[in-house]
Amino acid sequence: MTEPVETVQAPRKKSVALAGIEAGQTAICTVGASGHDLHYRGYDIHDLAAHSSFEETAFLLIHGDLPNAYIFSRYQQKLLSMRGLPAPLKTILENIPTAAQPMDVLRTACSAMGSILPEREDHPIQGARNIADRLLASFPSMLVYWYQYARNGRRIEVDSGEESIAAHFLHLLQGKKPPESYVKALDTSLVLYAEHEFNASTFTARVIAGTGSDMYSAISGAIGALRGYKHGGANEVAIEIIQRFCNPDEAEDGIRQMLANKEIVIGFGHPVYTISDPRSNIIKEVARRLCEEAGTPMLFEIAERIEQTMWAEKRLFPNLDWYSAVLYRVMGIPTRMFTPLFVMARTAGWAAHIIEQRLDNKIIRPSAHYIGPEPRPYAMLKDRK
Amino acid sequence: MTEPVETVQAPRKKSVALAGIEAGQTAICTVGASGHDLHYRGYDIHDLAAHSSFEETAFLLIHGDLPNAYIFSRYQQKLLSMRGLPAPLKTILENIPTAAQPMDVLRTACSAMGSILPEREDHPIQGARNIADRLLASFPSMLVYWYQYARNGRRIEVDSGEESIAAHFLHLLQGKKPPESYVKALDTSLVLYAEHEFNASTFTARVIAGTGSDMYSAISGAIGALRGYKHGGANEVAIEIIQRFCNPDEAEDGIRQMLANKEIVIGFGHPVYTISDPRSNIIKEVARRLCEEAGTPMLFEIAERIEQTMWAEKRLFPNLDWYSAVLYRVMGIPTRMFTPLFVMARTAGWAAHIIEQRLDNKIIRPSAHYIGPEPRPYAMLKDRK
Repeated sequence: MTEPVETVQAPRKKSVALAGIEAGQTAICTVGASGHDLHYRGYDIHDLAAHSSFEETAFLLIHGDLPNAYIFSRYQQKLLSMRGLPAPLKTILENIPTAAQPMDVLRTACSAMGSILPEREDHPIQGARNIADRLLASFPSMLVYWYQYARNGRRIEVDSGEESIAAHFLHLLQGKKPPESYVKALDTSLVLYAEHEFNASTFTARVIAGTGSDMYSAISGAIGALRGYKHGGANEVAIEIIQRFCNPDEAEDGIRQMLANKEIVIGFGHPVYTISDPRSNIIKEVARRLCEEAGTPMLFEIAERIEQTMWAEKRLFPNLDWYSAVLYRVMGIPTRMFTPLFVMARTAGWAAHIIEQRLDNKIIRPSAHYIGPEPRPYAMLKDRK
Repeated sequence: MTEPVETVQAPRKKSVALAGIEAGQTAICTVGASGHDLHYRGYDIHDLAAHSSFEETAFLLIHGDLPNAYIFSRYQQKLLSMRGLPAPLKTILENIPTAAQPMDVLRTACSAMGSILPEREDHPIQGARNIADRLLASFPSMLVYWYQYARNGRRIEVDSGEESIAAHFLHLLQGKKPPESYVKALDTSLVLYAEHEFNASTFTARVIAGTGSDMYSAISGAIGALRGYKHGGANEVAIEIIQRFCNPDEAEDGIRQMLANKEIVIGFGHPVYTISDPRSNIIKEVARRLCEEAGTPMLFEIAERIEQTMWAEKRLFPNLDWYSAVLYRVMGIPTRMFTPLFVMARTAGWAAHIIEQRLDNKIIRPSAHYIGPEPRPYAMLKDRK
């Protein structure tokens, strides 16, 4: 597992296409209506992060409302039963190289699952929900099965016995029962990453769903979009920046230098939130506690000093990626699995949007502004200079 | 290879989102500027179909201009050298079930190739062109390798010795040198399918590319979008309709009955062309000649009678899918490979658009119109009814 090396210097201002243009209706999420709020189906993200597990949140997004205790216990059983991997999929995972990017592994595994257990066409809504549940349940299994085989040559059992998706992932990755504080922290981060309206990966899923295509096509397309450094890849770049520095003072100097060089500090600012990212304060407190508990407060202090510097210099606030990166590092998760964790969470939101796009039954087909050559005469191959 | 069974009854009128909204600039293609014209980088589709091979057309789209004879001969050599499949990819293909949809196979194979021979980040434009060329050269190999293994248990050599992509595909599929007339006909159809501005699959590729993601992510996402019955899947539905009927009179009655039942006849009309689809007349003449040559004029006559009926009843013209389906059937191509052929052609256009989106450096992030619940109070799991 190599660390990402790129330092992104692409301009971000004025670089959004279709900004402010409504591409459809949604009942799933509101983002930044007041500049710094986030609601999933009407519920405030603070309530969900404090009281709902990721599985409850996924149910809310995919089914439209929070489950009661009976329905939720059945839902948990269903998810537990879907963690296994078909044998051909295991062989496919074993043939993906050790050096592969985990995002490429998940994209390929999702696509392969679609060829092995394809979506049937007889129940476009319930069928979609079933596939969403299968992917939520099995993405950790897919990723870690590949990782343990590629790194250690071990064909692991993907039955961890853990109840939650967060615990299942950590258990498979680290080969032992994870501390309860890790499970809770990762679970909260999955809740926060689960949904965010018409972001680029969700919009990708909706464009694909709009043609009448299947769930696996829409979700593997969304994984491909999330992979980009301007989108889900940001949490991997964030930790790379934090880890450049040994202490807060060095970090402050380094960030000022980056800003003087007009470099972008990934993990700050947001195209939709204008005041702050409401998820950031939640995950910041989780990261603070975990760093203290783990006896590594320096990592947190560096991240916090950079936050202060970015605010003082640029009036930019951290987004969800910034302290999530700290959290994942403290738990010992390899950097290149940060964005795959985003996949595991956002699959809930993607599925909800795919179902909504199906019900809306619209194909998404914008126009283009042509700036190319005028009609020109054709010359035969032999006559071309 | 099972035949598709669905008869699509979804409404098509007023079912396009973002219609007429410019989502970006392009220098690649103009569609329907006069109601019935198509130009690739300023060249009329009639000239390209008559005089340019698919490989020349792909070069035009991806590199921006038609090659001269020297550059083109080097380009052909490059494509020839890229037809092979890495060993892990072959094993992956062998693990995709016989019953799989070929579109799922191509989507998975493209994604897997991206994990085996990933894109490097040091040459965003030339690197993208190289991957485009690799996919153009190897998609036929991937698809037919899987097909022959899944159907016949044979691990074929993917070195056909044929010069063109069209001939390479037919040779691998049918296990022998294809007739020159087949090669020419398929080549023309690939030229016609190669590019079509901001259609849903191309737009998918651009949304994915807009996040800074890699070529394989963008193209496997586009394959997923093309798979939908409202998009690339149409040529498979078209042949299913044509093959319901034994002769032109029966077809005319059957189509009138479908229209009376408010069923959609896939293969007619177009969201962008208002007068006619300029590609349809070109491919119609190719299909007519090939049906005559093959001694199966009835198939063509049924398709033509349905065309006449659709015009008389609904003033709807055939689009490219209609007579392409006839052509592919006459050549003995299995129905479920019709849309994969569309992939092989459109990869050229997708690649050109991905490169353009990279140069434009914009993320595509529209807004949504919220119609869901207002903020509501949270109840704990145990308190929910």
